Amino acid sequence: MRLHLNENTAGCSPAVLEAIRRLGRCEAAFYPDYDTAYDAVGRYFGVPVDHLLLTNGLDEGILAAAAAACRDHSVGVPEAVGVVPAFDEYDICTTAVGGRMVTVPLPADLDLSAEDLRAALTSRTRIVFLSNPHNPSGRSIPLETLRGLARDVTPAILFVDEAYADFSGDTLIHPDTFERFPNVVVGRTFSKAYGLAGLRVGTLVGSPLTLEPMRRVVPPYSVNAWAAAALPVALEDRDYRDWYLEQAAASRALLTHACGRLGLHTWPSAANFLLVRVGNAPAVVRDLAVRGVRVRDRSAEPGCAGCIRITAGIVEDTKRAIAALEELLCAAQ
Amino acid sequence: MRLHLNENTAGCSPAVLEAIRRLGRCEAAFYPDYDTAYDAVGRYFGVPVDHLLLTNGLDEGILAAAAAACRDHSVGVPEAVGVVPAFDEYDICTTAVGGRMVTVPLPADLDLSAEDLRAALTSRTRIVFLSNPHNPSGRSIPLETLRGLARDVTPAILFVDEAYADFSGDTLIHPDTFERFPNVVVGRTFSKAYGLAGLRVGTLVGSPLTLEPMRRVVPPYSVNAWAAAALPVALEDRDYRDWYLEQAAASRALLTHACGRLGLHTWPSAANFLLVRVGNAPAVVRDLAVRGVRVRDRSAEPGCAGCIRITAGIVEDTKRAIAALEELLCAAQ
Repeated sequence: MRLHLNENTAGCSPAVLEAIRRLGRCEAAFYPDYDTAYDAVGRYFGVPVDHLLLTNGLDEGILAAAAAACRDHSVGVPEAVGVVPAFDEYDICTTAVGGRMVTVPLPADLDLSAEDLRAALTSRTRIVFLSNPHNPSGRSIPLETLRGLARDVTPAILFVDEAYADFSGDTLIHPDTFERFPNVVVGRTFSKAYGLAGLRVGTLVGSPLTLEPMRRVVPPYSVNAWAAAALPVALEDRDYRDWYLEQAAASRALLTHACGRLGLHTWPSAANFLLVRVGNAPAVVRDLAVRGVRVRDRSAEPGCAGCIRITAGIVEDTKRAIAALEELLCAAQ
Repeated sequence: MRLHLNENTAGCSPAVLEAIRRLGRCEAAFYPDYDTAYDAVGRYFGVPVDHLLLTNGLDEGILAAAAAACRDHSVGVPEAVGVVPAFDEYDICTTAVGGRMVTVPLPADLDLSAEDLRAALTSRTRIVFLSNPHNPSGRSIPLETLRGLARDVTPAILFVDEAYADFSGDTLIHPDTFERFPNVVVGRTFSKAYGLAGLRVGTLVGSPLTLEPMRRVVPPYSVNAWAAAALPVALEDRDYRDWYLEQAAASRALLTHACGRLGLHTWPSAANFLLVRVGNAPAVVRDLAVRGVRVRDRSAEPGCAGCIRITAGIVEDTKRAIAALEELLCAAQ
C-alpha cells in the first residue's frame, strides 16, 4: 500500500484508461498537440487559455517559476522565500537555478504567520512559495491571508501551490484574482485527485504577462501525448473525482479519529494526508513497511520531529493502515 | 504527411505499443520508477547508469544543462556559445534561465569552423552547444574535431546534441570520452529513430560529477510512466530500428538525388532530413502543404536563405513528397 506520496490510491478514472489505450503508434511518434487539453483546463477553471501554462507535472511549473524569478542577478543573488517545513522542490529548484532559498520556520501549530513571512522579504526577493493546503501539515491558509500577502510581496511573485486544493475545495483561481493581483501564480496538479501522477501533468494559472517568462523556460513539447489525451477525459469524469474526494475525506476523518484514540498528535488537515507525531518515526515507517504499508518519514524536517505523513486514499486502504498502526503501537507497549 | 519535425514517420515499434497498452489505472496514478529504464539505457550505450540522466525529451536535457551552466553570475552574466543556424532551444533555454547566448555564424557550406568557435570563447563561457549531425544542415562533425574542442573549451561544458546520431552512426558516447573529457555531456533522444517523440524521453550522458548540477534541475518524476515502460522495449527491438534507419537512409538518398535533378542546392546530410534551397521558401512550404506535405521553413535563419528542411522518413512518404515538389516546381516554371 502506497500511502507515502499522496497519490490517488484508486488509480485514474476507468474512462481515462480507455481513452489512452486508444492511442496508437503514431501518437507515440509524433510531437503532441495541446489545443484540446488547454481548452478543457480553461473551461474547468473558468479562465482564458492564455492564463494557463500546462507543465510536465506541477514540479516543472515550480521549476519554471523559480528559473524565471531567479534569472536576473543584477542586484545580487535572487531570493525565494518560503516556510519550513514545506514541499522540498521550492528549495531544490531555487538552488538548482542559482537563487537563494530563504526559509521561515512555522510555529509549532504549523499555521502560517504572515508577519514572519513579511519579515523575511528583502529587495532581492523575487518569489514567495506557499502551498495551500500546506504540505506536510494539510493546514489551510485563508484566501484573504493570501490576497493580503499578494499585495505585500509585490513586485515579487506569490506562487500558491494548490496541489491539494481539490481536497480542500478552496482556490485562488478566479479571473478577478489575476486582474487584481497580477503577481499571483497558482500551481495545480492533476496527479492527486485525478490520479494522473504517472502520466505527469499540471498547470500554472496566472496573468499572461506574468506567465510569459515561465513559458519560455518550459520546453515546447513538455507534456506528453498520453497525458494530453488523458487530461480532458479526467476533467470530464466528475463522478469519479467526486467519489474519490469523498473517499479521501472519509479516510482523513478515520485517520484523525484513530490517531486521537491512539494518543498521537495530528494537525487539522484539509488535504489527502495527515501529519502524525508518532515519536520514533523511522522505526514506525520501517515497521509499517514490514506490514505492507508505506508512509513517509517527515521527522527530519523543522517542526516535524517524530512525525510521519500518511496518505488518506481509499477507505479500504486506510482501514488496513490504521489496523497496522494500532497493532504496531500496541506491540511496542 | 508530417515531414516538418524530423519525427519517425512510421510510428513507434509495434512491440512498444503492445507494452504500453498493458499499463493500467495504477500506473497512471502512481509516480514512476526508473530502474528498468536506466538499466536498459546503460546497457544500450555501454555506460554505467551513474553516467545517465533520463529527461523528459532531450529538450529538458538542454534546459537542465543551460540552467546548471548559467547558475553562477559571480563574474558577470554567464555565456553559452553556439553556431547559427542551429536548433533554437539552445538559445531559448540559455536566455530563459538568465544566460547570454553568443552565436557564431557558420560559413556558407554550414561546416563547423572550430577556429571561429574558439574565437567566441570568453572567461564567462560556461557551455558550448553543438549538434552532431548538425541541425538543420545534417552535416557531420568529425569526432576528432569534437574531442579537440572538448579540450579547448575547458572548463566550460561541451554539450554535444546527438539527437540525430542514430542516423549517422557516429557518437562520442564511450566510457573513455567521459574519463578523458569530463566536461563533455552528450544529449540523446529516443524521439527520432525510436519514434517516441509523443512519449517524451531522452538522456544526458556524462561523468557523474558533471551531470550532478544538471540532475538537480530535473524534477524527480520528470519522465512519465508510459515513456519509462516504452523505452526498454524500444531499445530491445533492434530489427524495427534497423528497418527504420534503412528507410531513412534510402529516403535521404532519394531526396538528395531528386533535388539534384531539380537543380536545388542541398548540403550533405547524415541525419533523417535534408536542407534544400528552394528559393521562395514560404511559398514552397505553403504549396506543399496544399498538396498534403508539411515541411519546415528554415529561410529566416542565418545562412539558410531560401531554405526548407524536409524529413527523410519512410520511402513511401518520401516518394510522394518528391512528386509533390516536382509538380509544384514544374507548375511554377
